Amino acid sequence: MNRPAPGSELLRKPFPAELLFSLRERFGERVTTSATVCEHHGKDESAHPIAPPDAVVFPETSEEVSAIVRLCGKYGAPVIAFGVGSSVEGHVLAIHGGVSVDMSRMNRVLEVNVDDLDTTVQAGVTRKQLNQDLHGTGLFFPIDPGADATLGGMAATRASGTNAVRYGTMKENVLGLTVVLADGQEIRTGGRARKSSAGYDLTRLFVGSEGTLGILTEITLRLYPQPEAVSAAICMFPSVDAAVRTVIQTIQLGVPIARCELLDALTIQAVNRNSKLGLREAPMLLCEFHGTQASVEEQAQTVQEIAKELGGMDFQWATKQEERTRLWQARHDAYLACRRLRPNNRAFSTDVCVPISRLAECISETNEDIAKASMPIALFGHVGDGNFHLVVLVDPDNPAEAEEADTLNRRVVMRALRMGGTCTGEHGVGLGKLDYLDAEHGPAVAVMAAIKHTLDPHNLLNPGKIIR
Amino acid sequence: MNRPAPGSELLRKPFPAELLFSLRERFGERVTTSATVCEHHGKDESAHPIAPPDAVVFPETSEEVSAIVRLCGKYGAPVIAFGVGSSVEGHVLAIHGGVSVDMSRMNRVLEVNVDDLDTTVQAGVTRKQLNQDLHGTGLFFPIDPGADATLGGMAATRASGTNAVRYGTMKENVLGLTVVLADGQEIRTGGRARKSSAGYDLTRLFVGSEGTLGILTEITLRLYPQPEAVSAAICMFPSVDAAVRTVIQTIQLGVPIARCELLDALTIQAVNRNSKLGLREAPMLLCEFHGTQASVEEQAQTVQEIAKELGGMDFQWATKQEERTRLWQARHDAYLACRRLRPNNRAFSTDVCVPISRLAECISETNEDIAKASMPIALFGHVGDGNFHLVVLVDPDNPAEAEEADTLNRRVVMRALRMGGTCTGEHGVGLGKLDYLDAEHGPAVAVMAAIKHTLDPHNLLNPGKIIR
Repeated sequence: MNRPAPGSELLRKPFPAELLFSLRERFGERVTTSATVCEHHGKDESAHPIAPPDAVVFPETSEEVSAIVRLCGKYGAPVIAFGVGSSVEGHVLAIHGGVSVDMSRMNRVLEVNVDDLDTTVQAGVTRKQLNQDLHGTGLFFPIDPGADATLGGMAATRASGTNAVRYGTMKENVLGLTVVLADGQEIRTGGRARKSSAGYDLTRLFVGSEGTLGILTEITLRLYPQPEAVSAAICMFPSVDAAVRTVIQTIQLGVPIARCELLDALTIQAVNRNSKLGLREAPMLLCEFHGTQASVEEQAQTVQEIAKELGGMDFQWATKQEERTRLWQARHDAYLACRRLRPNNRAFSTDVCVPISRLAECISETNEDIAKASMPIALFGHVGDGNFHLVVLVDPDNPAEAEEADTLNRRVVMRALRMGGTCTGEHGVGLGKLDYLDAEHGPAVAVMAAIKHTLDPHNLLNPGKIIR
Repeated sequence: MNRPAPGSELLRKPFPAELLFSLRERFGERVTTSATVCEHHGKDESAHPIAPPDAVVFPETSEEVSAIVRLCGKYGAPVIAFGVGSSVEGHVLAIHGGVSVDMSRMNRVLEVNVDDLDTTVQAGVTRKQLNQDLHGTGLFFPIDPGADATLGGMAATRASGTNAVRYGTMKENVLGLTVVLADGQEIRTGGRARKSSAGYDLTRLFVGSEGTLGILTEITLRLYPQPEAVSAAICMFPSVDAAVRTVIQTIQLGVPIARCELLDALTIQAVNRNSKLGLREAPMLLCEFHGTQASVEEQAQTVQEIAKELGGMDFQWATKQEERTRLWQARHDAYLACRRLRPNNRAFSTDVCVPISRLAECISETNEDIAKASMPIALFGHVGDGNFHLVVLVDPDNPAEAEEADTLNRRVVMRALRMGGTCTGEHGVGLGKLDYLDAEHGPAVAVMAAIKHTLDPHNLLNPGKIIR
């Protein structure tokens, strides 16, 4: 299914033999040009055609990343940081060839400061690995994109997930970074203090820069105390609109809800089939409450009352850990479950986020698009933030469907922008949102390009992503 | 007391008559070169010697700011944005002369979106004005530095205050900006969506840039629902150490405390004298809890138990609004109250912030410095964030005292940096922290300088601040 895009070879310069020689000299068997490995590093979860790098290197330290970047700079070869390849906008594709820097061996949790609620990890540590490592400390790291992504990849794409409504995104939770710049120099940004007014916020500049301004090698993260009590609740609604209105009222009342997810009827059907849940196939809200026992009960009570007034049905509690885990696993698997609705499909995911007052309207207009579409489309999302996804299932052998999906995406993005929203709530720009970045930010994109040119004058760091 | 620093005239180029003519042509009586007005715009709350601009202009719109910047660019004159002059590191001082852009007429609240919990204001709106404007909406804006600063100034210095432990700093609460760049071009950054992964985070780059990368003209801010219940509590402690340990345990337990302030015995003495409060002259914690009635009681109960175990005395509730307002006004006036301890002083304020596990140690070592000092020094701060201030009262006619204060500041900053902290938690760099920025961020400062050079190649935007 994933073959090089026609003409993509034109973007590539021949890979310098001296560079490969120098990399081998320094990294030995930790350099490979194996076709299988390179192909694996030339694709992600998106529908973009595969674009393998010329070589893959597996560094173990920030210093080694620095050495790779210096060598690539010497020979003018692109450098692309690679986590687990779970990005969905083509972020890791080596469209100009070059060297993929696989962070999987940089997987050490360097320190956990329980008293300060922070940790420093190498960029290749995944979110699940970190939380396993934190077991027994009473702390956890809340950001949870669908995949078990690396924390480096999550920082690089400004990822979020289901907990963002309460705990924020990677933007709010990265305290500091070690970054290897385009010239191979290593810098540290931010620090462990909870707040600082000391100079430009380079940390936030690198968070979300998708490997185009520097390679993140170490990340200092905020941690949170495990809540004393957690409870989850599900509620079915007569319409997506009623579900969304419940969320809006909840947020406006200031209920400190921890997670608040919407799954539409088709998603529930997919999830039922995939995880054998037996839920009513109607729009559903899945909420979670964190706090003390008393506050958790109070929050859930408030949400239940709001839901009831808006026609909510089948309100159910999940207080036991296993029950909760099962529901949330189903939610995390929603993307894959939806893909299974149509075998051999190529999935295309939208990612708009709008001010919450426009969310019901945005979803309602989008549902009219879905009704007219010729392929199955599931809708779910982090509605507490105003962020939702469509998973459009496209037949890869039918170019008309790819075009239809593209048109649909454009309609959804332009609708979100018209409503004061963004083309991407959490997936990033990569290759897929380049046009929309212009539509969203206009002349500010030139400022981004100027910064890119200053920090990476030879355009070697993940070229072609974010900035054309 | 504030006279131009010897030699500071050397930094100035003569002010071009054509520029003044052009400004007058466009802005008429909204341009002035009056010595009184220029002097007022050439000083702030810091002890830095006065450095007046050559002219002051009072724009009313973003477009007018753009016109001023274009004209200054044409004639190579510096441009310094001016809010209310409450900065404490010399941020607004026109050390190279030029034009001060007084934002006081840009004082319109442009929109309040109650359903989305956001607002867009002109940069000259002050925090108190905004909260008065929000009266009746059920919403409020929590960030509260001591002064009634403008929101533009607060964004430019990445300000915070007493509520940061719960609601974050300006970094977390600015959603988007309108910025006039060095070439006069206006851009918009960020947006009203609660999260976005669309490109580099220019919003966070401008927040905290102290007018050196662009002039903030409009600001979109996050608002919060007024909590259903608020209660404040005070508790006296046998030592600063016991008070700090209470805070640390509170944070580590995940109590969502809204405000948590420490005042040392000397500060209490000053506050008693200033506000006639009659408090025991011992280290005091002043806490505030926001939430539902039940959760507020639960939080306060938890903190009281922790305090008791650590020797806390005189635990008192302030549930009535007037009582709370009186206590918090006293806290906000602490800086001025301390200054009144020694008439005709010049006050010098430190601003370090450390990881909370090091806070007790940092304050304890600092108290040893205070004990040895020849002048009165008060200590208070936002200890929930690890941030505290010393107010050092210096006799302006005694150069030895200024030197002693400077040495003390250096000791405190270097101690904080050694403990993984920052030289400035909320005041900013301005002129006063230039050396310490290098000490804190090392080679990353060169990256900041490169960005400054890219966005302001002729060094006309607030020159000499943050970047030398």
